[in-house]
Amino acid sequence: MTDTPLLRAAIVGASGYSGEELVRLLARHPRLELVAVASRRSAGKTLGEIVPGTPARVRELKFEDIQPADLVARKDIGVVFLALPHGVAAEYAVPLRAAGKVVVDLSADFRLRNAEVYKEFYGHDHPAPELLSKAIYAQPELHRAEIPQYDLLACPGCYPTSILLPLVPALRAGLIDPHSIVINSLSGASGAGKKAEISLLYCEINENMRAYSVPKHRHLSEIEQELATAAGTRVTVTFIPHLIPLHRGMLSTITARLKVPGATAADVTALYAKTYGNEPFVRVLPVGQVPEVKNIARTNVCEIAAQVDPRTDRLILLSALDNLSKGASSQAVQAMNIRFGFPESEGLDL
Amino acid sequence: MTDTPLLRAAIVGASGYSGEELVRLLARHPRLELVAVASRRSAGKTLGEIVPGTPARVRELKFEDIQPADLVARKDIGVVFLALPHGVAAEYAVPLRAAGKVVVDLSADFRLRNAEVYKEFYGHDHPAPELLSKAIYAQPELHRAEIPQYDLLACPGCYPTSILLPLVPALRAGLIDPHSIVINSLSGASGAGKKAEISLLYCEINENMRAYSVPKHRHLSEIEQELATAAGTRVTVTFIPHLIPLHRGMLSTITARLKVPGATAADVTALYAKTYGNEPFVRVLPVGQVPEVKNIARTNVCEIAAQVDPRTDRLILLSALDNLSKGASSQAVQAMNIRFGFPESEGLDL
Amino acid sequence: MTDTPLLRAAIVGASGYSGEELVRLLARHPRLELVAVASRRSAGKTLGEIVPGTPARVRELKFEDIQPADLVARKDIGVVFLALPHGVAAEYAVPLRAAGKVVVDLSADFRLRNAEVYKEFYGHDHPAPELLSKAIYAQPELHRAEIPQYDLLACPGCYPTSILLPLVPALRAGLIDPHSIVINSLSGASGAGKKAEISLLYCEINENMRAYSVPKHRHLSEIEQELATAAGTRVTVTFIPHLIPLHRGMLSTITARLKVPGATAADVTALYAKTYGNEPFVRVLPVGQVPEVKNIARTNVCEIAAQVDPRTDRLILLSALDNLSKGASSQAVQAMNIRFGFPESEGLDL
Amino acid sequence: MTDTPLLRAAIVGASGYSGEELVRLLARHPRLELVAVASRRSAGKTLGEIVPGTPARVRELKFEDIQPADLVARKDIGVVFLALPHGVAAEYAVPLRAAGKVVVDLSADFRLRNAEVYKEFYGHDHPAPELLSKAIYAQPELHRAEIPQYDLLACPGCYPTSILLPLVPALRAGLIDPHSIVINSLSGASGAGKKAEISLLYCEINENMRAYSVPKHRHLSEIEQELATAAGTRVTVTFIPHLIPLHRGMLSTITARLKVPGATAADVTALYAKTYGNEPFVRVLPVGQVPEVKNIARTNVCEIAAQVDPRTDRLILLSALDNLSKGASSQAVQAMNIRFGFPESEGLDL
Repeated sequence: MTDTPLLRAAIVGASGYSGEELVRLLARHPRLELVAVASRRSAGKTLGEIVPGTPARVRELKFEDIQPADLVARKDIGVVFLALPHGVAAEYAVPLRAAGKVVVDLSADFRLRNAEVYKEFYGHDHPAPELLSKAIYAQPELHRAEIPQYDLLACPGCYPTSILLPLVPALRAGLIDPHSIVINSLSGASGAGKKAEISLLYCEINENMRAYSVPKHRHLSEIEQELATAAGTRVTVTFIPHLIPLHRGMLSTITARLKVPGATAADVTALYAKTYGNEPFVRVLPVGQVPEVKNIARTNVCEIAAQVDPRTDRLILLSALDNLSKGASSQAVQAMNIRFGFPESEGLDL
Repeated sequence: MTDTPLLRAAIVGASGYSGEELVRLLARHPRLELVAVASRRSAGKTLGEIVPGTPARVRELKFEDIQPADLVARKDIGVVFLALPHGVAAEYAVPLRAAGKVVVDLSADFRLRNAEVYKEFYGHDHPAPELLSKAIYAQPELHRAEIPQYDLLACPGCYPTSILLPLVPALRAGLIDPHSIVINSLSGASGAGKKAEISLLYCEINENMRAYSVPKHRHLSEIEQELATAAGTRVTVTFIPHLIPLHRGMLSTITARLKVPGATAADVTALYAKTYGNEPFVRVLPVGQVPEVKNIARTNVCEIAAQVDPRTDRLILLSALDNLSKGASSQAVQAMNIRFGFPESEGLDL
Repeated sequence: MTDTPLLRAAIVGASGYSGEELVRLLARHPRLELVAVASRRSAGKTLGEIVPGTPARVRELKFEDIQPADLVARKDIGVVFLALPHGVAAEYAVPLRAAGKVVVDLSADFRLRNAEVYKEFYGHDHPAPELLSKAIYAQPELHRAEIPQYDLLACPGCYPTSILLPLVPALRAGLIDPHSIVINSLSGASGAGKKAEISLLYCEINENMRAYSVPKHRHLSEIEQELATAAGTRVTVTFIPHLIPLHRGMLSTITARLKVPGATAADVTALYAKTYGNEPFVRVLPVGQVPEVKNIARTNVCEIAAQVDPRTDRLILLSALDNLSKGASSQAVQAMNIRFGFPESEGLDL
Repeated sequence: MTDTPLLRAAIVGASGYSGEELVRLLARHPRLELVAVASRRSAGKTLGEIVPGTPARVRELKFEDIQPADLVARKDIGVVFLALPHGVAAEYAVPLRAAGKVVVDLSADFRLRNAEVYKEFYGHDHPAPELLSKAIYAQPELHRAEIPQYDLLACPGCYPTSILLPLVPALRAGLIDPHSIVINSLSGASGAGKKAEISLLYCEINENMRAYSVPKHRHLSEIEQELATAAGTRVTVTFIPHLIPLHRGMLSTITARLKVPGATAADVTALYAKTYGNEPFVRVLPVGQVPEVKNIARTNVCEIAAQVDPRTDRLILLSALDNLSKGASSQAVQAMNIRFGFPESEGLDL
């Protein structure tokens, strides 16, 4: 398909749910070759043994107990994806960046520009504050132009993506009062990760639902950082995440007071259609339709609909995405495509 | 257990999901005897044939194609439960009330006091406006004292119950700005009823979720009616219901601007604990805990938690109930217990 | 309701799924008072704190770190339920029986009469072989007459119950070749217990299914023991259990070669209807109907249907029960009712 | 990728679940162009309007109310896929074949070679018996060599595929007694189709399971036809399908008496590994592992494991596949690839 040599990639943390999805995506990416996967607990076993659904192309690749220094030494590797818990990612990112590797980080470690905000929300000093200004918040639709200039891509997670894509255009356009924003998000269970905890058992999640991390979820920090940029002023929002009995999927339902009281759903939808008209991975729905998880599951698409409640002069924004795809792994691939100058949709489902 | 003769009851519409649940509850109620069940489509068949899980005590009872006049003629029947679609309930309620029967109506037909509001939300004239003032909005925790004086109990549905129980105390106490209320509710699939529609198929609801009836769901009318009474002023709210892949259960997440900015979660929780301290079927959770569907499934309990978001000065109210129980059938039994002077918890799960 | 003093009961192991269900059942049982619940990990907390859905009547009861000696010392306690893992139950049963307490054991520890068979299937010597002859296999429909004479009730689990109830009548009647029996059982996830294991996470069970413990599941030992009694000859069966994405419920589908080739479904169904005609908790379905989990969920009922495949001369037996109810806790209560001379259905859902 | 002109394809019946999946597969197939989709009920609407998750490449394609004559007239169309109910497919296949079009039929209409067997199982005369000998049973692993010689591909459905792939090698090798075969299959709900029926509602399938079509499911006819070919003798089996609460996926668990009593699981697994060693879409698992739906969901892979029960001398065969993929649409694409000489995996997930 191309004569350019393939970009050689490694994944650290390939055995969680986002990691599995990343393996699946990189395995079929026409510009990449996945050459190394790191995992302490699975070292010595093949991808196919640990994740039997792994695509044939990389089934025989073996997990290695790779330390940061080992990755630095692998000169052939051009890009390293980190699908690690918060805090652990920095331990890899610092030496890898020092060695000049491009790092695509799916964790929250480098998403904030301000180390003070990090400390407020995460409860300890940032492990590598000097890297914060060297990282880009790699939401393609918001920062496409800047991504190619960075070697540390801090990929946003599911909540921020499902909230920023619908909210940023309204704030940029001055359509809503930034002090009136209320966000309710509903997440499928894979968002909680692959951890041996009672609260994540089938019998604790099935036929159940609940809010959590009320009132100050950690990801508020990055959400508010990006909303402030869009609004040109500080923005503080109420955000309530919920855990829902399904595998993959996220809905966000956002309300805010309209500054332009007569605005109709048609007006607002037209603004969104214009904003995202050329975006391959954002689908603005006609007035009256609502985003549904089934329409975007296992794709890199985010569906958005706008409604107006004329009885209360509120804008209602609805979004749906797949928390493991557009909310994690496929969005990271999209950002990586942009960073390396590949076609943006390469290897992704439209 | 008692020497009082049993109250003889009929159910019209026993083959839907609320109707099934009502059969189950009446079958084991120690003060009642279920003597007639009406259903056109199931006439001639036994309850056990149509709903194989029917309790043994009433399995052999046969569905009859009972018209309103037939019920009027049954002198032994002291109470008739209507588990019918909106609009059809009135066709039974009018002659039954004219004949002096006590009617426990699970539909929306008699929940509004104002026929104009009915017309606005339901799109046609109310079929029996003269009965509106003869009906009580039969939410036990809000109208316990009045229920015994009425013979037409308009039982609230799941959304109103899950919203009013948490919101009314805050409005009565003047704690929140009544113009700032935003409500997100999540409903299990049984709330949509037992209808042969593609959108209700397993494969359309499983691994999916979506908002619906945005921005003006019909039940807003009764929600706002009761909130206005509590607030002593007109209240208009933003309400966004969502359909979630589980059988039974409802969460409501409500935010509103605090009028008393320094109020803490502990302050607000103390108010709720005081308000509902003697209520057998409302459970106010300690600060930091959240309502969960699994804690109240198949019971008549509504769990409530209050939180404060000091960053935005908003009150966050969370509630959980079972849409077929406290949100429909068991709450109707609770109201009936009050109406007939039975112990309020008789026949109900605590 | 009665002037007899209440039987005082304790549960050891009340925090697993069967234990929770047992608490719920004992809390509402009119002849019993639940006075103690033991759990090391939850000691000091109330039932309501650990299992928020606990019925009001026992919500404030506190978990205690009760050792066997403590239970022996509690003279007021007349019956102890053990909802413990295999092996641990014996540690309690031995001293409790020595002290003369009635023990209702939900584990597999005392279900076998032969210590050699125990060793073959469980891989180690039986911890208390002297008690095996003192225990009764407490399946009410098979051993009702003997239960009152025993003080150690070894309650069968879900697989044996769902298999024995349909199979025993066919073997007793000499209807099938005992060497031709093939059993496929499908279990809901609660059957795997409340353990913090990756394989039991929501995302590992939802949208998945698999067989397990092929070809020699431990419970084969008790199944074959009881089948041999019914057949009057040694019986060895093929048994394949499967894990299915639902909370509660079990189906067993059993085939065996008919010895009486001309037998029809009607003939066989008549035999079953006669066998179980007076059983309150076994429902034999008419020819052509099939057992469904939804018909028996959260009840003590087992549904059974018999079919004949005339093309292969095989009997097909289908059963459905709730693995936490008739397959565990409610069946234990049924056996306890028989042991103490209470009405057999007391406290149970029909 | 290639200079060969694309093969132009039509789908009739694209709005069911198999049809949706077929659209998704053909949309991304590098050798094909999907140029027409027929559906009476959706005529005039785009694929994207009816199935919002449709891939971007074909979202704007409009459903047409295409009659067989219209398709015959479309000279550019080289292959027509029929994703239609049993019986309707023949109405299209007859004129399309008469006009020389290649037909890939996903229905059961042309899977049997014998019109008498068809009548026995389907209850009426075959609508086009003259075509039966012109059709190939298009199971690639069984009939790969013959497929290129046929223009009417009768693609097997999910039950036959999940049964034949594990059973045929054992019969061909004379390993088992053909009169002793018992098959239990578990199907996800999408197998029942997209029909507005009460029995297919979320609340009827979720938290439920049941057997159905006992004892003579229609697909027994094609299963036994192919088994007889493999065994070289008539084969009659007992087959019990079950409906399970998940979206996509099928397990089959098959037992049969071993003719070679000493055979071990290792022996049998070696036979399977040899048989399917070069098959891209069959994965034979090592002894001790079991097929799981999650390992093959949304791929064209069938997982197979073999076990031996030495206590009963039975072979136990386990298989897992996705009923909409290997059990329907992706297997049809695989057969089409073979028919047209494309690489067999083209457009398919490994």
